[in-house]
Amino acid sequence: MNTRTLRQLTYQRLEIGAGRTGRLLNAALMLLIALNVAGVILESVPAPQRTYGLWFRLFEIVSVAVFSVEYLARVWACTESERFASGWQGRLRYMLTPMALVDLFAILPFYLGVFINVDTRFLRALRLMRVFKLARHSTAMDLLLTVIRNEAAIVASSLFIMLIIIIMAASGIYLIEREAQPDAFQSIPQAMWWAAVTLTTVGYGDVIPLTVLGKVFGLVITVAGVGMVALPAGILASGFSQELLKRRTEYQLKVKESLADDSLSRSDLRELRSKALELGLSQEDARMLLQSETTRPSAATCPHCGKEIS
Amino acid sequence: MNTRTLRQLTYQRLEIGAGRTGRLLNAALMLLIALNVAGVILESVPAPQRTYGLWFRLFEIVSVAVFSVEYLARVWACTESERFASGWQGRLRYMLTPMALVDLFAILPFYLGVFINVDTRFLRALRLMRVFKLARHSTAMDLLLTVIRNEAAIVASSLFIMLIIIIMAASGIYLIEREAQPDAFQSIPQAMWWAAVTLTTVGYGDVIPLTVLGKVFGLVITVAGVGMVALPAGILASGFSQELLKRRTEYQLKVKESLADDSLSRSDLRELRSKALELGLSQEDARMLLQSETTRPSAATCPHCGKEIS
Amino acid sequence: MNTRTLRQLTYQRLEIGAGRTGRLLNAALMLLIALNVAGVILESVPAPQRTYGLWFRLFEIVSVAVFSVEYLARVWACTESERFASGWQGRLRYMLTPMALVDLFAILPFYLGVFINVDTRFLRALRLMRVFKLARHSTAMDLLLTVIRNEAAIVASSLFIMLIIIIMAASGIYLIEREAQPDAFQSIPQAMWWAAVTLTTVGYGDVIPLTVLGKVFGLVITVAGVGMVALPAGILASGFSQELLKRRTEYQLKVKESLADDSLSRSDLRELRSKALELGLSQEDARMLLQSETTRPSAATCPHCGKEIS
Amino acid sequence: MNTRTLRQLTYQRLEIGAGRTGRLLNAALMLLIALNVAGVILESVPAPQRTYGLWFRLFEIVSVAVFSVEYLARVWACTESERFASGWQGRLRYMLTPMALVDLFAILPFYLGVFINVDTRFLRALRLMRVFKLARHSTAMDLLLTVIRNEAAIVASSLFIMLIIIIMAASGIYLIEREAQPDAFQSIPQAMWWAAVTLTTVGYGDVIPLTVLGKVFGLVITVAGVGMVALPAGILASGFSQELLKRRTEYQLKVKESLADDSLSRSDLRELRSKALELGLSQEDARMLLQSETTRPSAATCPHCGKEIS
Repeated sequence: MNTRTLRQLTYQRLEIGAGRTGRLLNAALMLLIALNVAGVILESVPAPQRTYGLWFRLFEIVSVAVFSVEYLARVWACTESERFASGWQGRLRYMLTPMALVDLFAILPFYLGVFINVDTRFLRALRLMRVFKLARHSTAMDLLLTVIRNEAAIVASSLFIMLIIIIMAASGIYLIEREAQPDAFQSIPQAMWWAAVTLTTVGYGDVIPLTVLGKVFGLVITVAGVGMVALPAGILASGFSQELLKRRTEYQLKVKESLADDSLSRSDLRELRSKALELGLSQEDARMLLQSETTRPSAATCPHCGKEIS
Repeated sequence: MNTRTLRQLTYQRLEIGAGRTGRLLNAALMLLIALNVAGVILESVPAPQRTYGLWFRLFEIVSVAVFSVEYLARVWACTESERFASGWQGRLRYMLTPMALVDLFAILPFYLGVFINVDTRFLRALRLMRVFKLARHSTAMDLLLTVIRNEAAIVASSLFIMLIIIIMAASGIYLIEREAQPDAFQSIPQAMWWAAVTLTTVGYGDVIPLTVLGKVFGLVITVAGVGMVALPAGILASGFSQELLKRRTEYQLKVKESLADDSLSRSDLRELRSKALELGLSQEDARMLLQSETTRPSAATCPHCGKEIS
Repeated sequence: MNTRTLRQLTYQRLEIGAGRTGRLLNAALMLLIALNVAGVILESVPAPQRTYGLWFRLFEIVSVAVFSVEYLARVWACTESERFASGWQGRLRYMLTPMALVDLFAILPFYLGVFINVDTRFLRALRLMRVFKLARHSTAMDLLLTVIRNEAAIVASSLFIMLIIIIMAASGIYLIEREAQPDAFQSIPQAMWWAAVTLTTVGYGDVIPLTVLGKVFGLVITVAGVGMVALPAGILASGFSQELLKRRTEYQLKVKESLADDSLSRSDLRELRSKALELGLSQEDARMLLQSETTRPSAATCPHCGKEIS
Repeated sequence: MNTRTLRQLTYQRLEIGAGRTGRLLNAALMLLIALNVAGVILESVPAPQRTYGLWFRLFEIVSVAVFSVEYLARVWACTESERFASGWQGRLRYMLTPMALVDLFAILPFYLGVFINVDTRFLRALRLMRVFKLARHSTAMDLLLTVIRNEAAIVASSLFIMLIIIIMAASGIYLIEREAQPDAFQSIPQAMWWAAVTLTTVGYGDVIPLTVLGKVFGLVITVAGVGMVALPAGILASGFSQELLKRRTEYQLKVKESLADDSLSRSDLRELRSKALELGLSQEDARMLLQSETTRPSAATCPHCGKEIS
């Protein structure tokens, strides 16, 4: 096996996740990421940290080694893709893609910690960033990122409006409650804590308007503001539904394409399965869409013209 | 009446709920389940437990007896269905269906409690599982399960993302508040309690960031995270609407079918009513759908071709 | 003017709200209802009750007198409607309509209070029921009632499921926290208070799980349950949108009808305005719908066939 | 350059924001507004206020000077617009438009403060109103205002219904808890604080029903009422989605128009970009809409007639 073939193999297994080896490799990397997240959480608890400190350290070194090899392999093999084919120049461009940067930041803090003297606890928490490496493997995260990108403008708008409402509410309560509760409502920034806690309906109850006017103002602002604060959620939820609808349609098109020659071969089915996985559809969902397509009568008459629909 | 006929009758009355006897039988079983749930709740209150303990015990024995007979009858009669027709082999397959397992787990703890020495209070709470027996009778539960199955992938995705956000929020507040409140934010798992209580907007107020930086972080994480946490609700709600729309369309198709011979006989109406019940539509809803179908003008022109729509 | 004419006039003014007198009469009745609600609220405050008690009493007597006359007039005049045309038999049927019953219950407590000795404070609160009289005048309430009726089955289902989730959560926390907090989690009914306060995300903070297992259970139940509890809201909101869409379409049809003779006369406009009012559309909304209809090109070609759309 | 030309230039730069100067001018004004808001918030904190009080005062004078010049320039130049072309009469009409009034109220308090002796802290908070000047520059605010106008009738309805539910809940809890907690539930207006805090799910926990009946009532009202209170949010969110859909369609129409001559010139692209900005679409969104339009196959067959779609 020459170098060319090895690089091609690495690219196909690691980046595309093709074949049995590819799928196993990706599953192993996902497991390691999950174990890393669990490790960071456990390491913060004093008792296990004292007892198993050395093991945690060892696990960290092994993890960083694996992730480093993974990163180097990806950078080395990326030239197999058409997008980054142009040698070292292509590799540099690959290294600046979001996912490659996430891979780099997952290992960089460890190497920095060796040379520079940083607070270890802060460094440890930084390891949590490794969870973003999952985005490469998780269709859920991919779906969420797509939806957020689609609805970015409108979500940003509603967050901006929310900020203005919080500032207005904070100013109002500051003017009203300042004298009754000089500690809690000493300034507008302080009053913003109350405004945010109230308008998001968290309502800890640590700061509450006490004067009658303050209560009336708080009541009005809450009833009116609840709608505004719930806006981003509503917009994202409807964005999710629409994106999923779009993906279902895309899958249906693929099904129709596969059915064009009036038969569904084994390779067709395999392709459809990988398409469903790529689009983040559940197996159940994909099966039902496929079924509804195959059981549909092949010829139907147009409700308007009475002609057959081709 | 020979055995064959009796089994057929049992199947039709119990499993299908056909005829007046079938409907009465099903209603009686639902009532018994509801009484069982009420019983478990009441039995946990000390006063009635002391006074009426014997009656509770008696009611439990009668209930288990009835449910046992029901379970055996179902297993015995299931071979009448085409799916489980193949004798004892079919019966075994039936016993592994989700609903049959629910039926089994509804009575098993009682028999176990006779032989093994288990905490009676834990055993009593297990009886609450009987509420899932309702799924067989309740179109509401059936509808919910359908929606959850349809939207499983996307709801799982958003729950997973929510978990990541909670972990991130917990790590952040742990780093910030650890020194100011060593008791409440001693470790990331402990900080996750604050993160979950805040991001779901429950906001008990037992743990609150006290430092300025902690408050700013809490404020930002809350405003940004509220949208994420409300996602599953929004997705399920839109899934509910879509499922109901689908069922309404299905009912309308049934209505059109019944109207194909230009008249609506009594048996047509009875069929439509049972269809509406099966689909979980309200009587009001079904009536309106039927009306809108019957009062529609029989001939209309196509907006495209100008021809009459047949 | 003979009796026949007077009854017709009463019916048209009071029930239909036709003409200037009718509109004034309805506005006056709405104002009186609003004042009654304000009165009940104010009367509960000790200070004004002591000072103006007599005036409150007087206002109550006048209100009941007016509402009694209104009720009698409605019952007397209802025979003008086709639905209740058959004399006293029709009147009886009218008296059993929901709105007539609301009118009756709005005055009945007063007359009962004269004869029977009831707690006056309870009687006073009952007067608040008069707010339902507004349903006759308010398109908002009418819209809400329509939506609730449309979505009744599905909202009832989700409320039922919510109840089951609350019972399950209460049983779980009862088993876990019973020994750590015997006061707060003494029985399942008591634990239901915690479950309901948590799952609706109200989160008072008066009862909180203290054990680690209880906190983990509480966290899981909250994250999973939040979606369920927000379901009715989501379903109602989407029902509202759909109902409004239906009403807009209905209005557009009316506009098209008015435009059939290629001109929009003054009486057409008046009719459209009253239609918009009846359907609960805002003036702005109605104006825009009308505009979009009138500025549309009168002839367009079908995107499919290339023929003109008639 | 004569006066006529200068006025035209002022109008184009300031009101339309045309050209590089126009864009810079608008950006500078937005920055000044943002700095003003930040200034009001900071000035409320005692420490910086004591140290930099003079600088805050100076910044306020400069801001008012700039806003005054801006206001006068707008009023002077508005006659360039066709709507307000008729000299001083047109200027008066312009001064009564909502945005011109906002501009006036942004500077008026300062001049009033010079002549009349008002509480400076109240006057300072009034400056926050300047944030509404952003509405002229922000497509987000413009979008929100459009949605609120579209859904005004239905949101007002649901707010009205919410008020009735709060009054009902307050009356109920007042009757039940009055004797157990005479301080917190002394009157219906006081009980409304509990009702609003509970039904909006804020749940501070400062006032809680203590009697068993009160808890049962609180539980029922919360579970049932949560849906009602979340209605405005749901309605606004779906309104947002619909408005955005409408704007995307409008953008697509513009794209189709630009593509009518089968090529996309540079001036076409510039026009499309400014259209996207005007409609509040994100760059990403606009790019995708454009792409989907240009890559669509030029000929497709109609599903009904089998003819090519022109």
